[in-house]
Amino acid sequence: MSAELTLELIDQLKEAVETRDKRFIIGALQNEHAVDIAEILDNLDTDSCKYIFTLLPDQLCADVLSQLEDDTRRDFLKVFSSKEIAHFMDYTDSDDAADILNGQPVKVREEALALMNHREKSNQIIDLLHYEDDCAGGLMATELVKANINWSVKQCIEEIRRQAERVEKVLTVYVVDDTEILLGRVSLKKLILSHDDTLVKDIYSRKIPTVQTYYEEEQVVEIMQKYDMEALPVVNVQGRLLGRITIDDVIDVITEQAELDRQIMSGISEDIEADDSVWMLSRARLPWLIIGMIGGLLGARFIGFFEEDLTLVPAMAFFIPLITATGGNVGIQSSTIVVQALANSSTMMLSTYQRLLKVILVAVLNGVVIASLVFCFNLFFANFHLALVVSVALFSVVMLASLTGTITPIILDKININPALASGPFITTTNDLLGLAIYFSVAHLLF
Amino acid sequence: MSAELTLELIDQLKEAVETRDKRFIIGALQNEHAVDIAEILDNLDTDSCKYIFTLLPDQLCADVLSQLEDDTRRDFLKVFSSKEIAHFMDYTDSDDAADILNGQPVKVREEALALMNHREKSNQIIDLLHYEDDCAGGLMATELVKANINWSVKQCIEEIRRQAERVEKVLTVYVVDDTEILLGRVSLKKLILSHDDTLVKDIYSRKIPTVQTYYEEEQVVEIMQKYDMEALPVVNVQGRLLGRITIDDVIDVITEQAELDRQIMSGISEDIEADDSVWMLSRARLPWLIIGMIGGLLGARFIGFFEEDLTLVPAMAFFIPLITATGGNVGIQSSTIVVQALANSSTMMLSTYQRLLKVILVAVLNGVVIASLVFCFNLFFANFHLALVVSVALFSVVMLASLTGTITPIILDKININPALASGPFITTTNDLLGLAIYFSVAHLLF
Repeated sequence: MSAELTLELIDQLKEAVETRDKRFIIGALQNEHAVDIAEILDNLDTDSCKYIFTLLPDQLCADVLSQLEDDTRRDFLKVFSSKEIAHFMDYTDSDDAADILNGQPVKVREEALALMNHREKSNQIIDLLHYEDDCAGGLMATELVKANINWSVKQCIEEIRRQAERVEKVLTVYVVDDTEILLGRVSLKKLILSHDDTLVKDIYSRKIPTVQTYYEEEQVVEIMQKYDMEALPVVNVQGRLLGRITIDDVIDVITEQAELDRQIMSGISEDIEADDSVWMLSRARLPWLIIGMIGGLLGARFIGFFEEDLTLVPAMAFFIPLITATGGNVGIQSSTIVVQALANSSTMMLSTYQRLLKVILVAVLNGVVIASLVFCFNLFFANFHLALVVSVALFSVVMLASLTGTITPIILDKININPALASGPFITTTNDLLGLAIYFSVAHLLF
Repeated sequence: MSAELTLELIDQLKEAVETRDKRFIIGALQNEHAVDIAEILDNLDTDSCKYIFTLLPDQLCADVLSQLEDDTRRDFLKVFSSKEIAHFMDYTDSDDAADILNGQPVKVREEALALMNHREKSNQIIDLLHYEDDCAGGLMATELVKANINWSVKQCIEEIRRQAERVEKVLTVYVVDDTEILLGRVSLKKLILSHDDTLVKDIYSRKIPTVQTYYEEEQVVEIMQKYDMEALPVVNVQGRLLGRITIDDVIDVITEQAELDRQIMSGISEDIEADDSVWMLSRARLPWLIIGMIGGLLGARFIGFFEEDLTLVPAMAFFIPLITATGGNVGIQSSTIVVQALANSSTMMLSTYQRLLKVILVAVLNGVVIASLVFCFNLFFANFHLALVVSVALFSVVMLASLTGTITPIILDKININPALASGPFITTTNDLLGLAIYFSVAHLLF
């Protein structure tokens, strides 16, 4: 739906809610995709949303609820009773239900779980609530279709008929033994292509990547991406099938990770959006601004030690921005290349020694080019002595910034901090100080 | 497979190739996933790879070929004749085949297409070769399963049996009319759950998002992500079904885009990896280093105009790094928030006026905090006059850097340049100069 159409529809819906025009509301929404309806409801007040919910089919309401933004949903659910929430949960996939209930006050959560009609499902949701958000257990849903290895294709299809009622997307059929241990998978395609009396054990595929509940979401992403899987089964330590992670959830993880990396690289310390409040936006930005400020003040104190040199050669001050900017740029480039290499674990074949040699060679090459260009320029505009100081300092800054930029993300990664931090204000602040130290030391020595 | 296991296997395979130990090679590889074999072959020389290829089944070889890195594949295919390449293409999905042939010299490409056994398929590949890499046409494969709207479920399943032979993953069955116009879709699950004599027209779902061949890959990603689709059908202007884009290709697009954004934000101007040559790594980094250098030299010339002020108050130089660093940090934070908002087109409801007001409020808040902290600090370490100059300049820098950081990505986006460019050295270089101009102007006025 285009933005203009949506805005028009929102206006019409507001009017229809006021005049209680049921027919219009039902006609306008019942055939829309849940995600489109969620986008529209995001722009209506809570009471209007609740009125609209009373008119739509239960399944659609549950789907819309899963698609709402976390903040909107929290506000929205306040006007529903625990009984009503429990009713929606009966229609919601277990992983979404766990996420939704996780965002509720404990009292509402417990009441809703107790009031659900599907006992088996509420137990599954309770199990899912134990897992952290960012591990395989927190991503998986318990809805899946499975077949016993000893069944025939005919039995299998009958079972699928029964199980598929409550599974929105089948994608693949998991093959288990009598104790629910996962043995492999068989595709719907293969089942359709096989004779009725073929046995599952003769057509199933044994090779299937799995994860355990405690696997980190990064590992889940890596496996599903590497093996082009639409769904990844989750097992416990014994190999018992517990659930599956579907690709749509993994795509959300990938885009969230990328957004988080970009924020960390920009010195934003909380997950914020342009729509958040002025206070939240400021609060997320101030920590790194203050760290940068402290770096700047330390720099000021440091340059202060060289006040005499500056009084002698005021032109030295001209090149301070060149030195600090070059250090920052080189440092961020270096760390980004390392962060990227850390993310692609497949590039494991180069030894640390070879890597370091390459970093140094690239730094020498870039350092020589930049230092020479600046030297030529300065021959025209500054005296020879200063030109020499600036270029020697620049070359040293490029070398050192390359090394810190390369080593910092590796260290961060080792101590389990997101290495993307090294591609942001962290490295520019450090390199500003490093650059000033080099510049003024070189000047002090050569003057 | 773990890294250690892989390294051990590579050594064993090298030995087995030398001793022509066919049995070991076949045993070690034939049950591995194509992507694992591709990773292993990446570490062997081309002749060994070719020998191993002669031992593996054709389908597996074709799959491995699709999974190889572009550079490796180009080198690797040089030792095969056009006839042999054509043979692999007969076993490769049309989208991968088009990508592989696209990387070949024109002569090899034309010969391979002419020598393929499957005439229909080579024609489809020729069609696909016309599309740009980064549009829907360039992402789609022609392999899919479709059913006529007038068929019964029984007819439909028989047809699927026939068509599914050459389609690795069915995912969904597209419903078309007699002229191949796409009308909707029906899931395998629904087919299995329905009676044999039910008509497709009574069970298919009409609402299905589609794209045309010229859609940009960003639009494809947005649609598939929004509607949680495993496959997105591609149609021509008349609505005729041409192919489908599968989710694995879209995930690759998402991760490539994220990587590209990170590189652009870090001032890296080409798509490089840590494994690339020293020369390539330098070349990708020099452009932005040189632009930063020019900015630094302009800054030097600019400060030069105020040499007299500096001789009078050398302490002014102390705060240059603080001013430039703050401008850079604020600018990058602001632009990242805008870039993120531009990517999430759903946040369209705030007017430009409201947005701008919010940006200004956040800037005022952050500016007041930073300027006050620095002022307090400077009261102890610098004279009152200089403290005032620095804080007034800092506040102005925060305000102006917020505005340039907010406006630049919007302008870049409007003229179809990746707005992430504004979260990198582009904005830090601009803001360095802006900051210096403000600082020295304020100083000149207030001293």
